[in-house]
Amino acid sequence: FPSRLPDVGTTIFTVMSALATRTGAVNLGQGFPDFDCDPALPEQVCQAMKRGLNQYPPMAGVPALRQAVAKKIGTLYGHAYDAESEVTVTAGATQAILTAVLCCVHPGDEVIVLEPCYDSYAPNIELAGGRVVRVPLTPGSFRPDFEAIGAAIGPRTRAIIVNSPHNPTGTVWTREEMQALADLLAPTDVLLISDEVYEHMVFDGRPHVSASAIPALAARSFVVSSFGKTFHVTGWKVGTVAAPAALTAEFRKVHQFNVFTVNTPVQHALAAYLADPQPYLGLAGFYQAKRDRFREGLAGTRLRLLACEGTYFQTVDYSAVSSLGEAAFCEWLTTEIGVAAIPISAFYADGREQRLARLCFAKKDETLNLALVRLTTL
Amino acid sequence: FPSRLPDVGTTIFTVMSALATRTGAVNLGQGFPDFDCDPALPEQVCQAMKRGLNQYPPMAGVPALRQAVAKKIGTLYGHAYDAESEVTVTAGATQAILTAVLCCVHPGDEVIVLEPCYDSYAPNIELAGGRVVRVPLTPGSFRPDFEAIGAAIGPRTRAIIVNSPHNPTGTVWTREEMQALADLLAPTDVLLISDEVYEHMVFDGRPHVSASAIPALAARSFVVSSFGKTFHVTGWKVGTVAAPAALTAEFRKVHQFNVFTVNTPVQHALAAYLADPQPYLGLAGFYQAKRDRFREGLAGTRLRLLACEGTYFQTVDYSAVSSLGEAAFCEWLTTEIGVAAIPISAFYADGREQRLARLCFAKKDETLNLALVRLTTL
Ligand SMILES: CSCCC(=O)C(=O)O
Ligand SMILES: CSCCC(=O)C(=O)O
Repeated sequence: FPSRLPDVGTTIFTVMSALATRTGAVNLGQGFPDFDCDPALPEQVCQAMKRGLNQYPPMAGVPALRQAVAKKIGTLYGHAYDAESEVTVTAGATQAILTAVLCCVHPGDEVIVLEPCYDSYAPNIELAGGRVVRVPLTPGSFRPDFEAIGAAIGPRTRAIIVNSPHNPTGTVWTREEMQALADLLAPTDVLLISDEVYEHMVFDGRPHVSASAIPALAARSFVVSSFGKTFHVTGWKVGTVAAPAALTAEFRKVHQFNVFTVNTPVQHALAAYLADPQPYLGLAGFYQAKRDRFREGLAGTRLRLLACEGTYFQTVDYSAVSSLGEAAFCEWLTTEIGVAAIPISAFYADGREQRLARLCFAKKDETLNLALVRLTTL
Repeated sequence: FPSRLPDVGTTIFTVMSALATRTGAVNLGQGFPDFDCDPALPEQVCQAMKRGLNQYPPMAGVPALRQAVAKKIGTLYGHAYDAESEVTVTAGATQAILTAVLCCVHPGDEVIVLEPCYDSYAPNIELAGGRVVRVPLTPGSFRPDFEAIGAAIGPRTRAIIVNSPHNPTGTVWTREEMQALADLLAPTDVLLISDEVYEHMVFDGRPHVSASAIPALAARSFVVSSFGKTFHVTGWKVGTVAAPAALTAEFRKVHQFNVFTVNTPVQHALAAYLADPQPYLGLAGFYQAKRDRFREGLAGTRLRLLACEGTYFQTVDYSAVSSLGEAAFCEWLTTEIGVAAIPISAFYADGREQRLARLCFAKKDETLNLALVRLTTL
């Protein structure tokens, strides 16, 4: 039968992780920590399982977890979501974004994405029968180009997907930029899907400006976050969506016929764990130290470091090192230098070449040190 | 914005569970056990978490789990799936079915469902842009009507969704029926999505005839199963899809952009737990005893019991008890008698009335006893 996604192969993250494993390279490709989570968290999961919390939770999520999330958003971003009708627990952020897209995009609708962007967005839109409208971030700085976004909005535009802190480039939108987006969308009924999975990884005192912090945006947004990235448990697959009740109602119609609901004991554990804000409030400092160590180590190489305002990714320009294309360079770096990276071209539909590669620094210091020993030959 | 699923509300299972909780009724509505799983299973999850298995597993699932599933299917049904390219771990069966539908159904394609059927099938098809073609099971017996199915197959038919053991009616397709389906599909390129989540709950010595057991079907099938139902952990949300490599490749293209992957420690625990076949092989006897106890208890009532060949559901005809419509009867049964049930009309698009209600007997004997005390007033 004909493919629904003829242009899609296996994600670059899976491909590079497999290559790293096969070649014994230090895996700075796929974004996940190589250190473990706080042992208090698995302990909470074990306790929930022992208390017999192993059957279906409510479809939208365990109430205590939704309440904890609503409280956190209220405290941090000043928007009071109703836990009952406006917060939904998802099987990770990717499922959240697909579900948001499926619930609002009708065949023929257009959805704007800002390239480079995470590789699930475009297939998500295509699966809904929508048309992907690609607007590049400003070349070089990777900041939003509001003129270009404004020009892309038309009568068929249903939604725009925005991601700050930004994977892969590490930019973090300022309050002015989020406000500019709000102003741009104000006269339209374009929805915002705001991918904020790196919300707690913002550096140098910068704030994360959530779409929920700007009332005009919150009113039209699905705000997506991820516990996997925040609590170093990418394999647990739990995220959340906060959205006004009317949007949440549509979201849940699809959600209940996709995953229906999410692992019960893990939800109880996260609800308990969120009582203490320190683990997520301390995350920025934790990753900033890793970023600084990693950047210092790379300073002596011919790699040019792009700014890294947030996320756990450092993008580098390798044009002084190699004239290979990005995919070939990352393969060479993995097999010959022993460090796996992700080509930025994988975040563009046209695979454009800019001599950029992404390195993940969510790694133990000893892993970063080993990678640096290898990278300093460059 | 206009709804993608304008006819969909909250699932009947969620609605009835909420009503049961609010009224203190015995909840025989939503299908889940009120007893706990084997403590060995949570113990395995805890061990996996303590071993630090908390990051992304491979996209298609933990290899050991896929191998254990391939081995189980090989042993039970005689089909040798390749664990690497033909088995995928999903976030439950519902996600598996949506993903199967999304990967093969193009806008305008038709998909046949046999009514009554699980309430996610039709919205899944609609989300893919497909057209739902509803063929009734034979009234009264709820056996497949191959003439009607044959008549429904046309040039736009992409797939048929079949479910045996059958929720809600408890029928189990015979080998002859599965073979008849194979014969019917042989001259077509119609795909089969075979929902076999109750595969281990078949009674009175009956076999479960999997689509994987019939080579002509296996070659065109997504075979869906569920650990939640088999191991009494409906809240863990883990299922599997077995399908030929070409189908699996398309399935995974969508899967990676839906949930991407599934809870790592749970997958490791299930892989270890599957080493012993007793827990799933013993399930039929375990639930048959509950079925027999429940049916005996109901024998003195004016409820007429339909045959229950498999699943953990008993469907009853209440026409000698009440002239209420099914939804009203189930509400009355919940609030006035104190036993929650599910109207069979919820499994039909047209909500047709047959005076049938579904009762779940996956409950502790004391729960069933309490329900029976209340139901024997009927
Ligand atoms: C879902 S695998 C990819 C992890 C990730 O977010 C990334 O590497 O960008
Ligand atoms: C996903 S909630 C419903 C559980 C179930 O399979 C049923 O009750 O039919």
